[in-house]
Amino acid sequence: MALNPSAVIEITAFGWVPEFAQGVVRDLRARWALEEAGLDYRVRLLGQPRPPEYLREQPFDQVPCFNDGEVRIFESGAIVQYIGEKSEKLLPTDKQGRFRAIQWTCAALNSVEPAILNLLLIDVFYKGEEWAKLRRPGAEEMAKLKLKRVSDWLGDKEWLEDRFTIGDLMMITVLRFLRHTNLVAEIPNLAAYLERGQARPAFQRALQDQLDTFAANQPQPEGAAA
Amino acid sequence: MALNPSAVIEITAFGWVPEFAQGVVRDLRARWALEEAGLDYRVRLLGQPRPPEYLREQPFDQVPCFNDGEVRIFESGAIVQYIGEKSEKLLPTDKQGRFRAIQWTCAALNSVEPAILNLLLIDVFYKGEEWAKLRRPGAEEMAKLKLKRVSDWLGDKEWLEDRFTIGDLMMITVLRFLRHTNLVAEIPNLAAYLERGQARPAFQRALQDQLDTFAANQPQPEGAAA
Repeated sequence: MALNPSAVIEITAFGWVPEFAQGVVRDLRARWALEEAGLDYRVRLLGQPRPPEYLREQPFDQVPCFNDGEVRIFESGAIVQYIGEKSEKLLPTDKQGRFRAIQWTCAALNSVEPAILNLLLIDVFYKGEEWAKLRRPGAEEMAKLKLKRVSDWLGDKEWLEDRFTIGDLMMITVLRFLRHTNLVAEIPNLAAYLERGQARPAFQRALQDQLDTFAANQPQPEGAAA
Repeated sequence: MALNPSAVIEITAFGWVPEFAQGVVRDLRARWALEEAGLDYRVRLLGQPRPPEYLREQPFDQVPCFNDGEVRIFESGAIVQYIGEKSEKLLPTDKQGRFRAIQWTCAALNSVEPAILNLLLIDVFYKGEEWAKLRRPGAEEMAKLKLKRVSDWLGDKEWLEDRFTIGDLMMITVLRFLRHTNLVAEIPNLAAYLERGQARPAFQRALQDQLDTFAANQPQPEGAAA
């Protein structure tokens, strides 16, 4: 168990989010990386609305932020790389291997996630809006094309390169944004890749800890709160 | 002049793209970083359609790819970081400074670019489509919110942190995706930041070299080609 209230490493997370976001909020990436690296951490929970001064820590009002007393950063991609530099389990130390992993981190964030998240937003946030209905088929096509690109690259490999890295960690959390659809399930090698990632004990602990937080902070119905 | 046909470093770029994309294709980021670092490079130009085997180099069929004989990577964010590790002009070497720069690279790619590019696509690729007309006001709001977040962070600072880094290089190329609008111009500190970045001699050379390539490969009108 890497959650430890007296740990030096602190990350920020939300105390509670609506159900569609539970299990995919981005502090999951930091938690997963910390679990893989065997590093203890504590969580500073943020309520709703976030205090305005949080923007001086995280200009986009998102989670996670990371602070280990030495380095203070935001952006899950940067945090995961920073943790990776502390553990070869996450990031190879040879130049080529290291940058192939960093490259896949960028690919997950920029070449894949935008099309995937766009579909999620259409299905969840903008559901019922006229433009969203008209756009959905095209947005699904875009998401499917990105999945095909990853699947074609992956082929029968276990991971994106010759071993698990932060690149896989990031890509797998991106694929999870489509859990409300069958799009990943329809592509056997990608479905197996996702399963392989999610089966890792470090992922399981990270996910459970995020979900436990939301369960503990479940808002009470208005009547009960009165 | 860092363009050198016998250089060890090779990047890929498109021989020609339509006008709306000229000056914003992502090999600009690699060229700019190489110019800042004072490293010679050569360009391997790709025609249209790209050869299918290019997908084994770049699974998303994009540019740039980077190869210096030691490391072979794609994704502009990773390439710029790799070049940054060769030059302190781009990437501080102290841990905090280094990761603040990497963090802004991720922020440019994931927290800002998707909303900005979404607006560009609506205005260029999907112009005239019914969903695009309906969505545009909301998409512009999203883009403006992201710009406000960056502007609020920037305040009266010259760069995102205390000096120019790869994070600024990436953010400035993202802001350029909005050059068909007044959205950046409407925010004085952001407009000045963009100007400051674009005034750098390394940026000017990189941009000119990209534009020169397109001018040299301008397709002939059908009549002239016959």
